Amino acid sequence: MSTQASHQPLRSDARSNRDRIVEVASELFARRGLDVPMAAIARHAGVGAATLYRRFPTKESLVTEVFADRFHACASVVDAALADPDPWRGFRTAVERVCAMQAADRGFSAAFIAAFPQAVDVEGQRLRAVESFTELTRRAKAAGRLRADFQLDDLFLLLVANGGLASRSAENAAAASRRLVAYMLSAFRAEGAEPLPPPARLDLLDLLT
Amino acid sequence: MSTQASHQPLRSDARSNRDRIVEVASELFARRGLDVPMAAIARHAGVGAATLYRRFPTKESLVTEVFADRFHACASVVDAALADPDPWRGFRTAVERVCAMQAADRGFSAAFIAAFPQAVDVEGQRLRAVESFTELTRRAKAAGRLRADFQLDDLFLLLVANGGLASRSAENAAAASRRLVAYMLSAFRAEGAEPLPPPARLDLLDLLT
Repeated sequence: MSTQASHQPLRSDARSNRDRIVEVASELFARRGLDVPMAAIARHAGVGAATLYRRFPTKESLVTEVFADRFHACASVVDAALADPDPWRGFRTAVERVCAMQAADRGFSAAFIAAFPQAVDVEGQRLRAVESFTELTRRAKAAGRLRADFQLDDLFLLLVANGGLASRSAENAAAASRRLVAYMLSAFRAEGAEPLPPPARLDLLDLLT
Repeated sequence: MSTQASHQPLRSDARSNRDRIVEVASELFARRGLDVPMAAIARHAGVGAATLYRRFPTKESLVTEVFADRFHACASVVDAALADPDPWRGFRTAVERVCAMQAADRGFSAAFIAAFPQAVDVEGQRLRAVESFTELTRRAKAAGRLRADFQLDDLFLLLVANGGLASRSAENAAAASRRLVAYMLSAFRAEGAEPLPPPARLDLLDLLT
């Protein structure tokens, strides 16, 4: 999904410039939305406008790279969870990290997808995420740690609820998200589970509406 | 908090007209926002415009009455919970009912308070709600059913998260809210409680931002 202007390997100082630009842009987009001027991004990253435009000739190419970076981080978390020999720890860690990323995201992903619907294969990435979480769920249930009546809808339920916290101040949103996720993971445990009302029919796409 | 045009007791047919108008207006405001025309409210309630305007001479008087009606229902739920001899059942029932009302509310209360900030003593009602829930919490902890590290912030956390579900379709929002609340109440139980990260500092006022 790379959208770099050049596909040649970058020298290490160029690489570090590129990483700093993506990191700063990610923060600014999250905090101020996609309208942040390119000049402000260059200034915050401590690079000249020429360097910024050499790496990212258009705002769209930079936004797309930031999104790809986040999506890649999210996919890495899920892959690491699938590789964990302890299925409950894998499930738990994946839920914690994905929710923490979402709490820091402040609507960025939804704004990105609304603004650049062609730039990303939403359907393909949705299917991949659903497959991975289905497998994490299956293993954690088989290990007797995740309650048998947990459904994937409940993960989307948590993500929608967690998304509702993101309008708080950044610091408080992170603390609120950690506390909500800890409560929900505690309730997801098989141990001492009480009956639940039926699950709501939810989907990852519900996060974008 | 009554805002009826007349403070005389109403005859029973007038009372039933009034109740139907408030009920219909409540549904329409929740579904379509505060801009719904008075004519549409009269039509849906099956009353003539003259009857509507005799009861509620202005849109503001009707909106305020709908809000008072909802707030009264909410206060009744909390009073009933305080009167319950079983402290955990009282706590649990109050949380379930308040969250169900919030899920059906679809932003009405926040819109109302933003539109008519003078019409309601937000601070006084906030203090009263906080006092009541503090007492419900104290009793449920004393009975050994509510986890000792539960804080009132956690109730506001649940309400903010629950509010995040309200943008779904009405039917799905209700199902999602029921499931979320059941999970959270399960996690609030003292039995089998695991350590939690620190609480977020939240307040009822966070629901309005």
